[in-house]
Amino acid sequence: MRAVRLDPSLRLEAKYSKPNPPPGEALVRIHQAGVCATDIQLVKGYMNFRGTLGHEFVGTVEHAMGHEHLTGKRVVGEINAACRTCPTCQAGRLTHCPNRTTLGIDRRDGAFADYLCLPVENLYPLPEKISNDQAVFIEPLAAACQILTQVPVAPTDRVIVIGDGKLGLLCAQVLKTTQCELSVIGHHPEKLALLTQQGIHTTIQVADISPGVDTVIEATGTPDGLKLASQLVRPRGTIVLKSTYHEQTTFDFTFIVVHEINLVGSRCGPFPQAIELLQHTQVSVEPLIHARYTLDRGIDAMECATTRGTLKVLITMD
Amino acid sequence: MRAVRLDPSLRLEAKYSKPNPPPGEALVRIHQAGVCATDIQLVKGYMNFRGTLGHEFVGTVEHAMGHEHLTGKRVVGEINAACRTCPTCQAGRLTHCPNRTTLGIDRRDGAFADYLCLPVENLYPLPEKISNDQAVFIEPLAAACQILTQVPVAPTDRVIVIGDGKLGLLCAQVLKTTQCELSVIGHHPEKLALLTQQGIHTTIQVADISPGVDTVIEATGTPDGLKLASQLVRPRGTIVLKSTYHEQTTFDFTFIVVHEINLVGSRCGPFPQAIELLQHTQVSVEPLIHARYTLDRGIDAMECATTRGTLKVLITMD
Repeated sequence: MRAVRLDPSLRLEAKYSKPNPPPGEALVRIHQAGVCATDIQLVKGYMNFRGTLGHEFVGTVEHAMGHEHLTGKRVVGEINAACRTCPTCQAGRLTHCPNRTTLGIDRRDGAFADYLCLPVENLYPLPEKISNDQAVFIEPLAAACQILTQVPVAPTDRVIVIGDGKLGLLCAQVLKTTQCELSVIGHHPEKLALLTQQGIHTTIQVADISPGVDTVIEATGTPDGLKLASQLVRPRGTIVLKSTYHEQTTFDFTFIVVHEINLVGSRCGPFPQAIELLQHTQVSVEPLIHARYTLDRGIDAMECATTRGTLKVLITMD
Repeated sequence: MRAVRLDPSLRLEAKYSKPNPPPGEALVRIHQAGVCATDIQLVKGYMNFRGTLGHEFVGTVEHAMGHEHLTGKRVVGEINAACRTCPTCQAGRLTHCPNRTTLGIDRRDGAFADYLCLPVENLYPLPEKISNDQAVFIEPLAAACQILTQVPVAPTDRVIVIGDGKLGLLCAQVLKTTQCELSVIGHHPEKLALLTQQGIHTTIQVADISPGVDTVIEATGTPDGLKLASQLVRPRGTIVLKSTYHEQTTFDFTFIVVHEINLVGSRCGPFPQAIELLQHTQVSVEPLIHARYTLDRGIDAMECATTRGTLKVLITMD
């Protein structure tokens, strides 16, 4: 099969071995995958990953021994393959299992290939109504949904999303479902326009946002974004950190103490909520598609996604 | 009256004018006050404060116009004098009122004097059972109690307090009341012994504490304390920052995101809870008293409190 591999340099292998699923795992034929900012970071050395890249995908189960009802089902998949036996798993924190492997990120071949394997428990069959184009957004959309599992957001709350990248645009749409008073601050009018069309207030001017915000979602992963979040949040307000940071950041923690700020890290989220949002057309993801490449041109897809300001780049296998 | 003033250098004034309480405020004759680490920071330039130092006190109300029932009452006082009309106050966040003055910290003369003024709403009459020695600990004890208003702590939770300074020792005793599995890590065996006597597990060896802690209380205000907190906390665990930091700190925020850590700043807390803990002998504060000075020797008291490793230094007025 074909696979976009990092080993240690990035290359397309045309004849990589088709995987053989171990007990408890399914073999999934991949239709389409999405390139994520994390993939770019992995190429730059993040996690020191070696293997097939890709963790946002939609595919069809070819076979899953002992789980024949899954065969032929179109699925998406939660990327963390947890041991389900350690104390962390038993406490329900599967995405934090210390023994986990992570699809296309940590010791598990990913989705920029014709096939992948994942534990059957990680797979979510898709309603017909959700297209393959929509389905590749379920993993990052679930990450955006994670915010609402961690932070209560009331319709009376004022919420700001900082960042108009892919994740920022998804976070904004998820937060919009709470009916909160929402604004998004970004750098790219053309990206922000995708939200304005949905009735979400956006701006490129910090001065447009008055401080005293209940909850700030920092989705830039930059020291500037973190600094702006600190300037906007109200005392006893919450800053949600949704993006990883490329380097250590200098920060005034006295600010956190004096204003009793709640700083919450937020990562992978619940697939069922993301599927439901798409099924009920509560979010619009197709406008985020920037380009499509066939798997044969997987390296070009990665290069395209690396260009600053690019939205979602898809890789199609079919 | 006598007053230990910062203006801009620290000095004892023997004949400072006795204050005249404005409407809504009480005149309190001070019996005893405690020196806090914040007082030392104020002398070093924190908040650029000018005025009488001191914010931990016990006194007796001399008069409070329109509130005659308070006259003669022995009281302690919440240090933030809020406007009670702004949106922050109306939302119940009085200690974060942007218009507030703060006793001995920000535009309000403090407690290292014979008299002070505070709004009557800030005063808490004391049960007879609580001694003056205990009462001067109510303000910092309330700050320790604030943790439990912000973070749920269950008896099954593993909790670590980092730091064996005055605040660390109070935080540990407050957390002990939750019946959680508690350990305190510090540098000073003689201070930790005060907790060991109360059945609290303590250590000076980081290696004694296994990671995976549900809630870590960082009460050192040092980058090392913050780093240790990060090493000990479990995924989706909570780090409570209880001390201010003297300078900007370099930090890896990706750690917060990947492990979905909750970082909570914690400052002033509820006086009624602190009074109740003392009334029911659930905490022991007198062993924290290191030295006593009369107000005439207030400058010596400040110098003593500046010595590294000193516990509570009291200033008595009577």
